[in-house]
Parts: sequence; structure tokens; C-alpha cells
Amino acid sequence: MSGPSALTVVPVEGIPEVRPGDNLAGLVAEAAGAQGTPLGDGDCLVVTQKVVSKAEGRLVPLDPDDASARRRLVEQESVRVLRRRGDLVISETSHGLVCANAGVDLSNVEDGYAALLPTDPDRSARWIRDALRARPGVDVAVLVSDTFGRPWRHGLTDVAIGVSGLAAVVDLRGSSDGAGRTLQVTEVAVADEVAAAAELVMGKSRRVPAAIVRGLDPSWRREGSARELIRPPAEDLFR
Amino acid sequence: MSGPSALTVVPVEGIPEVRPGDNLAGLVAEAAGAQGTPLGDGDCLVVTQKVVSKAEGRLVPLDPDDASARRRLVEQESVRVLRRRGDLVISETSHGLVCANAGVDLSNVEDGYAALLPTDPDRSARWIRDALRARPGVDVAVLVSDTFGRPWRHGLTDVAIGVSGLAAVVDLRGSSDGAGRTLQVTEVAVADEVAAAAELVMGKSRRVPAAIVRGLDPSWRREGSARELIRPPAEDLFR
Repeated sequence: MSGPSALTVVPVEGIPEVRPGDNLAGLVAEAAGAQGTPLGDGDCLVVTQKVVSKAEGRLVPLDPDDASARRRLVEQESVRVLRRRGDLVISETSHGLVCANAGVDLSNVEDGYAALLPTDPDRSARWIRDALRARPGVDVAVLVSDTFGRPWRHGLTDVAIGVSGLAAVVDLRGSSDGAGRTLQVTEVAVADEVAAAAELVMGKSRRVPAAIVRGLDPSWRREGSARELIRPPAEDLFR
Repeated sequence: MSGPSALTVVPVEGIPEVRPGDNLAGLVAEAAGAQGTPLGDGDCLVVTQKVVSKAEGRLVPLDPDDASARRRLVEQESVRVLRRRGDLVISETSHGLVCANAGVDLSNVEDGYAALLPTDPDRSARWIRDALRARPGVDVAVLVSDTFGRPWRHGLTDVAIGVSGLAAVVDLRGSSDGAGRTLQVTEVAVADEVAAAAELVMGKSRRVPAAIVRGLDPSWRREGSARELIRPPAEDLFR
């Protein structure tokens, strides 16, 4: 099933365990090629925060049974705590992200370590994009994705915390709708939707930390930044 | 670019303007066939709330310039108001959905009318699923999608407000992660992620009210309900 307007999402399997200092762009490009779906110009590559943090060495020793050490780490990674319930903290990180436990994560990390969010996930995305442009020489957009909860709605979805080469939010305000009337509110968080689509082929327990999304609207290609996805606190009715 | 684990998302174009009483399932199946991508067993069909509401006659007369009539309509469709700012109301609907203006929508609707949410979007999805099973005789999952804002994050994303034939939330708690450790929080809102993926090919102003998603994990097929996606107020830290 294909066509000019079809979107295809392919998991990149066979990426080895990522370690600090690894060339993540190279590992992903190699695995994509090996499975017969090499990266191509105009593709969007989605990589999970977890492997980006590992490649960048954003791992800190943490005894998984030491609740107070964990709490201190979450506080250290937070600029503001919004809510607490038991061990769960919903806080705002230095990136402006509002999420559980400031993104400090113990799953899929070596025992005795926790992964922190990348220092600057937009920069992480740009590094990967630049590395792929150099070798294998493809012009792709790159998203760094993470898995967040939402108020009101049950279940987690993946969102984009780092963006390069793609609009994060596409502004359709002023475009006319099918009836020729100006649309009211139509700023679409396409980077979050792309991250969500990628999650559908990654799965949590299948150790697939990357996916290729092919067929996105070419007009969405621009430098982009995950900062577009941060609602300014002054406009936020729930902060 | 394909493969056994690839996901494909195809817009269904050429669906005529939908009117109250129309057989929406038939219109979508016909348009999908006409463009060379007929619905197949195991596909997931995503249709927007707007066309479902139109087919079900959930249209009410509303003068677009009468702000107070509009406010009354929003109040009527709300069971609880969470926040107000200017003309914007964030409220909870009878379905348990928290969204702007209780889902009352004037865009892509005939002038002088507003579209309300379907009375029971799960039932709407089930009707479409049953109709497609009867004719053309395919076993597909059906999602009814709508476009919602989120606290903290800028931009809108599509979510599932009606579900039939697909798990809305996939519970991976207890599955082991790559390192053999039990995962902590892994309930994934797959129906919302599928709705988001579909939105990427629909676009707001292109009058494409349906998309076919092919290649979802077959283990997610079950009756399902959008109620799975409603976080119980008692568990919600932001209500």
C-alpha cells in the first residue's frame, strides 16, 4: 500500500547496545542499511532519548533501592516541582519540559545507573543530522523522542524533545478550511505526532531505539526546534 | 520502503461532503477503493470526529457572531469547567474528555452551524466497523479522532475519542526491558498515537477526513474503548 502521499514508518533494528562516546548516527545509518532500508534524503529519523543520553554519557550512578538518592537526583534535574504523589514527581526541567521525575530514568539502563535527559536535545538532534549529512551523505531531519504522560488522558505517548531539520509546530492559522472560512486554531505539533508514529513501531521491550519516517510534507522541512513545543508558562492555564 | 514491521499511513481522498444520514463507512470504503488502496483485514481506519458528527446529524444552528449563544452551547456540552480565559473554556464533557470548548466546533462546518461531538464515539466507531464488516466485508479497527490541545506543550495533536477493534492502551507493565529488568511505567496510549500518525497525512485544510493505518501490531486487536484513555479524576494530579 503506497502512493505519493503515503507515510511509511520503519523500525531500525539491530542497533547494538549504545555506550558513551559511540557514534550514534553511524550506528543507526549502518543498521538501517543492513536491514535494507537505508536513510534517504527527506526522511525523518527518530531516535529515543535513551540512546542519545547513553551516547552522550548522560549516565549517573544510582542505587535503584536508594529512594532518597533518587529523589535528590530528580530535584537536581528540576527547576520547579508542579505536583508530587508518593514517589512520583511532576516537574519542569531546565529545557522547559514538564514530565515525570524530570526525565530521570532507570529502565533500559545498566543496573546501578540512571539516564538523564540530554543537556540540549535540539543540539543532539543537530549533531546527528550533521553527522549523517557528512556520512553517508543524506539530508534527513532528526527528532529525539521521549515518552511522557499527560494530564487527563491515561497512557503514555512519545513526544519530540529535540528537533533538527523539521518544523516542530506547523502554523495553519489563516489557511482556509474546506468551506473557505478561515480556520480558528490550527497550530499542529507535527514533531510530536511524528514521534508518536515512530513509537508505534519501536515498542518498549523490543530494544528498537530508532525509526525512519518517510513521506512527511516537504513544506515542513526547516531548521525547527523543540522549543516551539514548549507552551510559555504565561499562556499555560495549567501551570 | 517496506518490510514486515513497517507501518503505512495513507490518506483517503475524494470523500464527498458528508451530510446527516450518510453512510460514512460506505463513502470511505468507496473512496479508498477508488484511489487504489482498498481497506483490508487488519487495517485500522481513522475517521475524524467532524465527519462522524456530520453523518450522525450532530449539527446545531449557531450564529458564529453570537458569542453568548456559543457560550451557552459550550456550557450545555460540559459537565465541568476546569479553566476559562477570554472566550476559551477548558471543560470536561459527558464522555470524560477534557478539551477546549467541549468539542463544539465551527470550522469545516456549514456557515450558521456548529458540530457537537458524537453522543457515544465508541459506538460510532463500532457502527462503522460493523458496517465495513458487512460490506465490503473487511475486518478493520476503527478510530474516531479529534484534535486537542495539551497543557504545557504548544500545538495541537490528534487523539482517539472513539475506538473499536483496537486496544486503546497497551499495558506493557511487567514485560521485561532490554536489560531483563521489569519495566516501570509502560502503558502506551497506542490509539492516541495512531490518531496522531493519521493526522500527519490528513492535514487540516486538505479536506481529508480519513486515513488507513496498515501494519499495527496484531496483538493489539481487541474490542477496545476510548474509555481506557480517560484518566480517572481521582488519579489525575491536574484536575
